[in-house]
Amino acid sequence: MFREQIKVLDCTIRDGGLINNHCFDHSLVRKVYKAVSEAGVDYMEIGYKNSRALFSAEEYGPWKFCDDDDIRKVIKGIESKTKIATMVDVGRVDLDDVKPAADSPVDMIRTATYVKDIDKAISMANHFAEKGYETTINIMAISRDMGPELDRALQQIQDESQVQAVYIVDSFGALYQEQVEELVKRYKALLKNKEVGFHGHNHQQLAFGNTIEAIIHDANYLDSTVYGIGRAAGNCPLELLIGFLNNPKFDLRPILDLISQEFIPLREKIEWGYVIPYAIAGMLNEHPRAAMALRNSDKKENYREFYESLRNIGDE
Amino acid sequence: MFREQIKVLDCTIRDGGLINNHCFDHSLVRKVYKAVSEAGVDYMEIGYKNSRALFSAEEYGPWKFCDDDDIRKVIKGIESKTKIATMVDVGRVDLDDVKPAADSPVDMIRTATYVKDIDKAISMANHFAEKGYETTINIMAISRDMGPELDRALQQIQDESQVQAVYIVDSFGALYQEQVEELVKRYKALLKNKEVGFHGHNHQQLAFGNTIEAIIHDANYLDSTVYGIGRAAGNCPLELLIGFLNNPKFDLRPILDLISQEFIPLREKIEWGYVIPYAIAGMLNEHPRAAMALRNSDKKENYREFYESLRNIGDE
Repeated sequence: MFREQIKVLDCTIRDGGLINNHCFDHSLVRKVYKAVSEAGVDYMEIGYKNSRALFSAEEYGPWKFCDDDDIRKVIKGIESKTKIATMVDVGRVDLDDVKPAADSPVDMIRTATYVKDIDKAISMANHFAEKGYETTINIMAISRDMGPELDRALQQIQDESQVQAVYIVDSFGALYQEQVEELVKRYKALLKNKEVGFHGHNHQQLAFGNTIEAIIHDANYLDSTVYGIGRAAGNCPLELLIGFLNNPKFDLRPILDLISQEFIPLREKIEWGYVIPYAIAGMLNEHPRAAMALRNSDKKENYREFYESLRNIGDE
Repeated sequence: MFREQIKVLDCTIRDGGLINNHCFDHSLVRKVYKAVSEAGVDYMEIGYKNSRALFSAEEYGPWKFCDDDDIRKVIKGIESKTKIATMVDVGRVDLDDVKPAADSPVDMIRTATYVKDIDKAISMANHFAEKGYETTINIMAISRDMGPELDRALQQIQDESQVQAVYIVDSFGALYQEQVEELVKRYKALLKNKEVGFHGHNHQQLAFGNTIEAIIHDANYLDSTVYGIGRAAGNCPLELLIGFLNNPKFDLRPILDLISQEFIPLREKIEWGYVIPYAIAGMLNEHPRAAMALRNSDKKENYREFYESLRNIGDE
């Protein structure tokens, strides 16, 4: 699959940070930036831009806040065409904290939102666009918001925002490829001059397959992470996506080295990937929160009880 | 997805046996049979029916030979509607060893073949059908045999055999879903009164996604294994497939218990699943043999060298 318009975004540090409170040390972040730069990845999302008034720097590491100075430290001296992105959540950013793009190492700001908060997300994204950033809106938990409210939100984004791409975010790892096809087609029908993005979660081992499905139907902004790191089951593995995208601009080898040297040892310390409670949450279209709590308890392999408890929630 | 004609075949012990020379002890095989029976799985493939003249019983365990008496031991006393299948490879079975179906606990014999051996496979499958068995032909390594020779083989199966299903076997884990769609359509166009089957391998985390793709295009015979066990990266996980097939005849819970009690500890002893060298073999459409050798060497995490060596094979 070769299509020039395709943009690959690495969100290793941002989504991976959800496992370790964004505490990756600067040397690892620097290695990831160097590897994705050498691999020819288009964007690297480095963390969240959260307000320090809302979250404690004692509890969370630097990539929860993404100070420009921290970013400068990890990219300094590395030759790169990879653009830097950060993510913001509705209601968690201090807009005055965000300098004009010309004064920042950040190129793109992605606003994550639920459908219900779409007004606020559009207003924020427009604020960032006016400051000179590339912008996207990423609609989370979409497997729970597939009714007409989604069409209204997309129409509003089309009419009122300047974002360059709008993402389908399968936060629960619940989508099967027929739903991905349907969603990409709905997005494309309503978003006349914007690209469609896809961010999968791997609860049911479908993050890569669903990303391919999105590509087939013309989504051009694709998220992935090194060795699939990310909250719960993690994301679409960057190495598989690069292998599939038969584009000579990509080089798989720096990513292979990074996995071998950094991510195999890291996986011994923090858990992500195919774990049955996350698969159960995915197939029942539930947030992985309960599954993550189970994995931190002494009942971590008690799948039957967990399955029955989650099914009962659905029956109420 | 609910379709009454769909048949799920568990090949946990058969494909898993490729990792441990078919040495699973009788108590584990019995537990698997009990769990898949309770879960409502249609078939359980228990191993290969190989000639004892060709393989040594010292080197290989009982499920390399599948003596009727061994099978009777593991199924005895368990209430079940699950049918028993065995697999045979072209040229490795002593046909006189195979008793009439009426005298055997085996219900189905599946003949695995490459396209080039299709004449022999048809002859063998007809022999088993005459002895009263249900039969299929499983075409292996299909990602290397997608030219017109495949159409000729399918036409020959249609004209000359009595098999009830013909499988697409993605031995190298190399297929993407567009190729699965194309293959299922080619099979269905030529096989007028036979079902299409799909057996995925998970080298690129696509076994489940590709199985869904096959289902969408009307494949009705679906292979999978408990917790995805199988050679190299393994297969489509049975638990995910049952979760997707929204058929009230299936019960996920016995499979969850089996994973929790048996397969989590087993995975500590033998390796399968998402491992980078298998992913590399899959994306380069190569047999996982070299990757398996790498994993048994002291260079097991040396991905770059492995990738370059495998790419060079392709360049010659």
